[in-house]
Amino acid sequence: MLLYDTALAPNSKRVRIFLAEKGISIPMRSVDLLALEQKGEDFRRINPMGAVPALALDDGEVLTESVAICRYIEWLHPEPPLLGRDGREQAFVEMWQRRMEFSLFLPVAMVFRHTHPKLAAMQQPQLPDYAASLRPRAIEVMRFLDGELSGRPYVAGDAFTVADITAFVAMGLTKLAGIEVPDDLLHLARWRQDVSARPSAAA
Amino acid sequence: MLLYDTALAPNSKRVRIFLAEKGISIPMRSVDLLALEQKGEDFRRINPMGAVPALALDDGEVLTESVAICRYIEWLHPEPPLLGRDGREQAFVEMWQRRMEFSLFLPVAMVFRHTHPKLAAMQQPQLPDYAASLRPRAIEVMRFLDGELSGRPYVAGDAFTVADITAFVAMGLTKLAGIEVPDDLLHLARWRQDVSARPSAAA
Repeated sequence: MLLYDTALAPNSKRVRIFLAEKGISIPMRSVDLLALEQKGEDFRRINPMGAVPALALDDGEVLTESVAICRYIEWLHPEPPLLGRDGREQAFVEMWQRRMEFSLFLPVAMVFRHTHPKLAAMQQPQLPDYAASLRPRAIEVMRFLDGELSGRPYVAGDAFTVADITAFVAMGLTKLAGIEVPDDLLHLARWRQDVSARPSAAA
Repeated sequence: MLLYDTALAPNSKRVRIFLAEKGISIPMRSVDLLALEQKGEDFRRINPMGAVPALALDDGEVLTESVAICRYIEWLHPEPPLLGRDGREQAFVEMWQRRMEFSLFLPVAMVFRHTHPKLAAMQQPQLPDYAASLRPRAIEVMRFLDGELSGRPYVAGDAFTVADITAFVAMGLTKLAGIEVPDDLLHLARWRQDVSARPSAAA
């Protein structure tokens, strides 16, 4: 297998943390996002949708989409389970993963894309009004998450899962997005410190 | 179980089609989206994130997020499989589901939300510039999908899956979003006709 990766993209980071939590390493090739390599003809032959990460399998098929890649890895390496154990748990982990993805990760990433000067070439047009409309929504979800984390150690329950990975990578983007995290969100801060202390956080 | 549903929301439709494909019916309660019932105190006790669909389980837990609800249903009723059979197939179905969701469904839904007068109360502020930036992207993805569908009957392969449901519901929103589907996309049109002819399409 070969993982097309990039240091910059938050979706690539999600897969790297997932692999680190599994204790797995896969050969990687770096794609230069700022040079728009992912939109070029060569990379389009790997992923026609022009996005990283992409996992080239040994039989020549290419799997894209960060969470789909995680699901494939989970199938090959079930331990520790990061997508839930039985069907019921898997559904609730997916619920939290999606809540974090659509209500936290996506808004924060969109604020970043629509405001950061370095992303002007990648995100055309940048729409600061759109970014401004998302900022309060991201803060609101952080406040909701803070309340949830007052009652349990991790986003989806007692165990670290893919939902923590998505939320952690989203929180890591807040600075680049110019979103100030309210400092009264103590449970969120505690959780973030816990997740930061895991060796996988540096992946 | 009780499914909180609404005729209007595309995410609710995804779950209804999924249930119809499984041949299952679940008691439903309708939530009035235009009256913003989903944002009210009563409904927030069911889903604090204020969105439908939501599936109340018999033990009192509530599962939200359309695809998470589908995964739970698939676990209870594995046949016919709509999320893939083995782990590898599940990863590829998830890849196509997510491609359809992020690159087709989400842009089309956002154009709808940011332009339709009836959604002005729900989507504040409506940003027509943002909608305008998404229209060409949605068309581009339809063209890509058309090419893919030239080589196989369904979005993710030979079998109808959740990826078809997401793409079909997205295509059904194009009219409300004021997005004109190019009429040279013959494979996409063929697929859409096939999926429309399934009894589940009316769910």
